[in-house]
Amino acid sequence: MLREATVEPRQEILRTAARLFQQQGYDATSMNDVAAALKLSKGGLYHHFQSKDEILFHIMSHAMDITEERVINVVRRIDGASLAGAEERLRTLIRLHIQVVISPEDREITVMLHENHPLPPALRRKINGRKKDYVHFVENLVADIQRKRAIPSSVTPRAAAFALVGMINWIYQWYKPDGTLTGDALVQQYTDIFFHGAVG
Amino acid sequence: MLREATVEPRQEILRTAARLFQQQGYDATSMNDVAAALKLSKGGLYHHFQSKDEILFHIMSHAMDITEERVINVVRRIDGASLAGAEERLRTLIRLHIQVVISPEDREITVMLHENHPLPPALRRKINGRKKDYVHFVENLVADIQRKRAIPSSVTPRAAAFALVGMINWIYQWYKPDGTLTGDALVQQYTDIFFHGAVG
Repeated sequence: MLREATVEPRQEILRTAARLFQQQGYDATSMNDVAAALKLSKGGLYHHFQSKDEILFHIMSHAMDITEERVINVVRRIDGASLAGAEERLRTLIRLHIQVVISPEDREITVMLHENHPLPPALRRKINGRKKDYVHFVENLVADIQRKRAIPSSVTPRAAAFALVGMINWIYQWYKPDGTLTGDALVQQYTDIFFHGAVG
Repeated sequence: MLREATVEPRQEILRTAARLFQQQGYDATSMNDVAAALKLSKGGLYHHFQSKDEILFHIMSHAMDITEERVINVVRRIDGASLAGAEERLRTLIRLHIQVVISPEDREITVMLHENHPLPPALRRKINGRKKDYVHFVENLVADIQRKRAIPSSVTPRAAAFALVGMINWIYQWYKPDGTLTGDALVQQYTDIFFHGAVG
């Protein structure tokens, strides 16, 4: 119990459960497996989370919290009044979102967010609502730049937001920390693609 | 048995299994569930597939077959000798890949491809090999255009290929056939974004 009191037990449970779910599948992982991996009694685990669904929901919520703290809140603090400021907001969002996706310590957590694991409808609606809010935030950044440039664009902010979120979130499917494409190169190139296209 | 002989039983099994896996999760779906949904005896099902792993592998292979037939093979038939031809190849790939992802009759099949369901290592390697071949095919299309334009680009064909495959594959996460963003608009806008950027 001393251990539980000192290392933020809920966060540790979520992190371990995320790793197990990712490695062996959500359905194939039992509450017993999670408790055993943490050297917790089953009672100790149930003290924090009532069910596996609740753990999965909190993993996904935690992923959204991470995105909010490390991406949205930082971008919001940048003054976007000028065109340069609005562009800086979008550049920062691309950089920070990529960093969250490739961050070694949060990788399992964010991967879980992108899986289509079955959550009870009420919990799923909450997560989907937060995902939609994020796309909407990106959409507004793009709309703001397009407005300030005052050049008509064939691209709607909505399609642009989906494209950007897709290309960044997909990174977890192929990214290897020791691969030839480093995190910094990825940030620079994805920014260039989104701003200017890949073959222009 | 007459029924099995007339409606391509293997394809029907894969389609039904894909739908069940997607709705209730891979691990939570038993071979019994699959047989029951198809009104097949368990023996009838095992006549075609020895295990659930084998079904999952064939669903994923089938998704890669669809991509090969309807995207890669069509693009290969376009003459890409000129810059205009090379660009037409890339435009065609974007259009056909999007159509495969949003196609109502293949939706479950392609969604399964994008899930990280646990496959035995040997089978997983085969699927991953085909996925890599696809990214490589896109990479070569981009490299070919960049070469023919003969203007140095800050974007590597590899990063561009990952970005494109990501933004298109991610569509299954949010696309609704009756939503405001139609398939045709999506094709046009994603093409514009990839060629010219979203805010340029």
